[in-house]
Formats: sequence, structure tokens, C-alpha cells
Amino acid sequence: MRTGPVGLTEAFERFTDQWSPKAIASVNDYLVKLVRVEGEFVWHTHDDTDELFLVVEGELVIDLEDADSVTMAEGDLFVVPAGVQHRPRAEAEAKVLLLEPATVVNTGDAEESGLTAAVEWLAP
Amino acid sequence: MRTGPVGLTEAFERFTDQWSPKAIASVNDYLVKLVRVEGEFVWHTHDDTDELFLVVEGELVIDLEDADSVTMAEGDLFVVPAGVQHRPRAEAEAKVLLLEPATVVNTGDAEESGLTAAVEWLAP
Repeated sequence: MRTGPVGLTEAFERFTDQWSPKAIASVNDYLVKLVRVEGEFVWHTHDDTDELFLVVEGELVIDLEDADSVTMAEGDLFVVPAGVQHRPRAEAEAKVLLLEPATVVNTGDAEESGLTAAVEWLAP
Repeated sequence: MRTGPVGLTEAFERFTDQWSPKAIASVNDYLVKLVRVEGEFVWHTHDDTDELFLVVEGELVIDLEDADSVTMAEGDLFVVPAGVQHRPRAEAEAKVLLLEPATVVNTGDAEESGLTAAVEWLAP
């Protein structure tokens, strides 16, 4: 068992790389991850799972296939439904909490690229 | 598909009752819920599932069976593992985000009581 809670602000201070999610907790077979994002990610789809985004700091835009883009400020939560093509982007760096099954690859069905990142756990 | 994100601060303003979780989003077969808590909840266990707590405002204490209590400030996240007896409490009202499978009953294995609450969706 963890001995204490994870402070999100403090946890974000422990890494600086972007588009490289760090797991901070598991909930059954799901992982809670923190990620710093800036610029445009690749368009991709997770065919089998929804994906939760919660903006901890900054502003995040999620472009969606066949729907208006979603603009998220700090404290905004949005779930991209399974099967929906999407592209996260941020003009300035944003800090984002993600929740999705542990098996999810960040770039979904997009071709593997420099953005494809294995999940690492944030060191305590 | 939802047409926009849920702002946590604004969503909390749409209800005032305590210990009565409101669902704001689903992630596959999990629900994200918001709850206002104050005072002591009942000791209970969820035998089959972990339970995520994220403090959005205020301070939350989670007493744990056979372990030190966890004191959480705003922005702190903690997962109570499946099978661990626990009791949330808050001296002053705290606003908390929960994530757990949609099938979870808030009072777990504790005897049904006035605190046992069916999940309702927060009206848009």
C-alpha cells in the first residue's frame, strides 16, 4: 500500500519532459498518469477505450474528428470516447492528468513515432 | 458524445448536499463523481475494487485499517486499495473527486444507512 497521497503540483515538479506520461497511481487495471504537453500531438484513436483528460495547469485543446475542438482550462475534465479520432495540443505548456487502462499506448492507432512513449512510473 | 468539458469548480456549484456523489463523466465502466464531504463517513470496505480520491478543495482525512491515516490537501490524490477498511472524514467541508467502477456502492460492505446513496448524474 502507498504510505501517503500524491500531491499533483509536487509530482509535476519531478519531471520536465513533454508528451511522456508518468504513472502516479493505479486503480485496478487503470493508470493515473501526469503529462506535460506543448505543441501538437499526433491524430490518433483508441479503438477500445475512453480516455480521461483533466487539466491541472494551463490550457489544453483537444481536436476531435467530426466535432468542434474542446478547449480546456485548469480544472476542466473531458473524456474522449473510444473510437473517436483526436489530437491534443497546447500553445503553451499545459500539465494534464490522464486516466486510461494500463494497456493503452499513448499514440493509439497512429504509426509508432518519436511521440510513442512507454509508460514509466514517476519515481517517489 | 459530450459537447464540452466539465469544469470542476462550476460543477460543484450545482449541488450542495453532502456525502451524495454526483456522476459527471464515465470512462468505460467507471464513473467520475464529485462529492461534498463533512464530518465522518462510515467505516467500510470495497472488496473488489480500488477507489480513487482527489481533493479539489479543502482537506480530507482517510482513516485506514492497520495503517496511519492519510491527510490530503487540495490537489492530493490517493487510492484506497481493494479490501482495505477505510473511513473518509473532513473537519470542514471538502470537495472531492472520486473514481471507481459504476457498480460501486458508496458505503461498501457497511450496513445500508442514511449515508448509502444511489449515484445520480449531475444535471447539465
